[in-house]
Amino acid sequence: MKSKSALSVQPGVEAPDVINKKLKNRFQRRKDLEINEYIDGILQQNRSILSQAITLVESTLPAHEEKAQQILEQILSHSGKSLRIGITGVPGVGKSSFIEVLGQHILALGRKLAILAIDPTSQRSGGSILGDKTRMEELSRDKRCFIRPSPAGESLGGVARKTREIIILCEAFGFDTIFVETVGVGQSEVAVHSMVDFFLLLMLAGAGDELQGIKRGIMEMADLIAITKADGDNTSQASAAASEYKSALHLFPPTKSQWIPQVKTCSAIENTGVTEIWQALLDYEYLVKDNGYFSKNRSQQAHYWMHETIRANLLGSFYQKPELQGEMQKMEQLLREEKITSYQAAKLLLQQYQ
Amino acid sequence: MKSKSALSVQPGVEAPDVINKKLKNRFQRRKDLEINEYIDGILQQNRSILSQAITLVESTLPAHEEKAQQILEQILSHSGKSLRIGITGVPGVGKSSFIEVLGQHILALGRKLAILAIDPTSQRSGGSILGDKTRMEELSRDKRCFIRPSPAGESLGGVARKTREIIILCEAFGFDTIFVETVGVGQSEVAVHSMVDFFLLLMLAGAGDELQGIKRGIMEMADLIAITKADGDNTSQASAAASEYKSALHLFPPTKSQWIPQVKTCSAIENTGVTEIWQALLDYEYLVKDNGYFSKNRSQQAHYWMHETIRANLLGSFYQKPELQGEMQKMEQLLREEKITSYQAAKLLLQQYQ
Repeated sequence: MKSKSALSVQPGVEAPDVINKKLKNRFQRRKDLEINEYIDGILQQNRSILSQAITLVESTLPAHEEKAQQILEQILSHSGKSLRIGITGVPGVGKSSFIEVLGQHILALGRKLAILAIDPTSQRSGGSILGDKTRMEELSRDKRCFIRPSPAGESLGGVARKTREIIILCEAFGFDTIFVETVGVGQSEVAVHSMVDFFLLLMLAGAGDELQGIKRGIMEMADLIAITKADGDNTSQASAAASEYKSALHLFPPTKSQWIPQVKTCSAIENTGVTEIWQALLDYEYLVKDNGYFSKNRSQQAHYWMHETIRANLLGSFYQKPELQGEMQKMEQLLREEKITSYQAAKLLLQQYQ
Repeated sequence: MKSKSALSVQPGVEAPDVINKKLKNRFQRRKDLEINEYIDGILQQNRSILSQAITLVESTLPAHEEKAQQILEQILSHSGKSLRIGITGVPGVGKSSFIEVLGQHILALGRKLAILAIDPTSQRSGGSILGDKTRMEELSRDKRCFIRPSPAGESLGGVARKTREIIILCEAFGFDTIFVETVGVGQSEVAVHSMVDFFLLLMLAGAGDELQGIKRGIMEMADLIAITKADGDNTSQASAAASEYKSALHLFPPTKSQWIPQVKTCSAIENTGVTEIWQALLDYEYLVKDNGYFSKNRSQQAHYWMHETIRANLLGSFYQKPELQGEMQKMEQLLREEKITSYQAAKLLLQQYQ
């Protein structure tokens, strides 16, 4: 069905200034969407409006932020109905290839997939988007899949907050599967873990240098460890690694979810292991929805992020106070020289803050 | 050598009120020690004055706190020269028996040992002290060993701060080995880990229910895992457990100290394994003093606790504000009902705080 406006316009015959005016109008219309237009657009699965809403969420302008918060508040009740999966692993582990293969597998099953990224170091350039599209060639061409690079942000907390809000928008749109991928190496794993239902850790066979990038404690957060590149000459090494991780994991204390973390091998080249990994995810979903952990965990995550935002705000006010910078350095020097206790240093700084 | 005052006094012939007055004076003198008397007393290894100084550190009276801080400031340069060892494990693992045996081993080597405890749940009753003395019978009778129960405190942060300050006093006194034992189960492990040079985790053989008490992530902090009760029928099971943990630990990412965490078995009943564990500790000390990690870690810990104190103070002011309590509950309810985002809830609370 063509719309009225489309029928009333005959391209070809318009003068350039008319076209310019039209373009300008269209651009302005895009900028000036009303809150309910955003909401309706998202609920009606308009991808362009979803993208615009995400851009609004990512904006640091106070007016945009205000608008974004109103949209989120009204759309919140339509969100929450996806399976949120965190995927992490050091560079070189084959994360993009893995996501490419797993993504296609679940699209073929009829699911709708959104892929978001967390990278606190990203400065959000065009290159970042291009990078994502190049990394996952098939998925980026597939219209059932929505790929969005990491929002820019100065702090991990800011990036994480925006990613959480983008999840809400994507869920309201109808995506039933959300991948949250860590792009940066390091602290973002904990943030991702606190916003997903399932945490998938990709590892390479061989416990050598490739482990350097994984911080201690990350392994214990994993619901599933997938040993990648289990193909060709590497197959038996990958299987051996999987056995080792399996016996290691069973020594860990039980998880709160009552889920027993799994170890699988997979190959993006030979397209193996992905079916089993997806099945484990569904098993997990079944277990935690049945035992109540799924919703309990989501609720705890919401509380966690409220307190985390408060924490970041209160500490931010303190640490960003220009008057304290010099004093802070002085205290750190005294601490290094062991001329003052930690408590005394803190007390002196707090006295100057109040 | 008798002192003059001792010669001028003839007990037996004094009237009761004179004795009472003397006792009262002595008590007052103890209460009213000058700062330099505390310092001299500690440096001259007067155990009674050390105990009084610790009581001062533990006091919550502002005047006592002020005095304690002055003592700490002046004594700080005499501290730092011990090996600080954190010892943790779930109830039932045999922690007291282990400490009893390891303690006697190192006293026999000529070292001076102070045993402190962290227990954020302790309300500091006489029973607590009695408990410690009963738990470690031999050590509590040994004059080369100093045992002090956990300071009372409402928060883990408060207890941890006092324990850190008591470490300073004990080191200035001349104790060259400090055990910091976790008594409570749960969060105190992280606090202990942040104030010691070496973190020793006691585990039972068999990865069943006894693991319940250990939080995930604790195992990766361990510099040494000791499988306890490796005696009698349990010996082979303990050895098997040790092998399993060994292969599990080598899958973990490398430690910042470059130390490869060890797994040992031991028995308090048969007095086995303790020599090897102590040797591992000395090996560790040699390694980290040689590679610079020892002092680097201590400096980082001092910084950590400064920032931790600031954090606790800023958050404490927020969360203890009576006006916010009702609003906080309202926000938590809205979060549970998914009617508000975490960020919105935090923002509303912060607005009311400022």
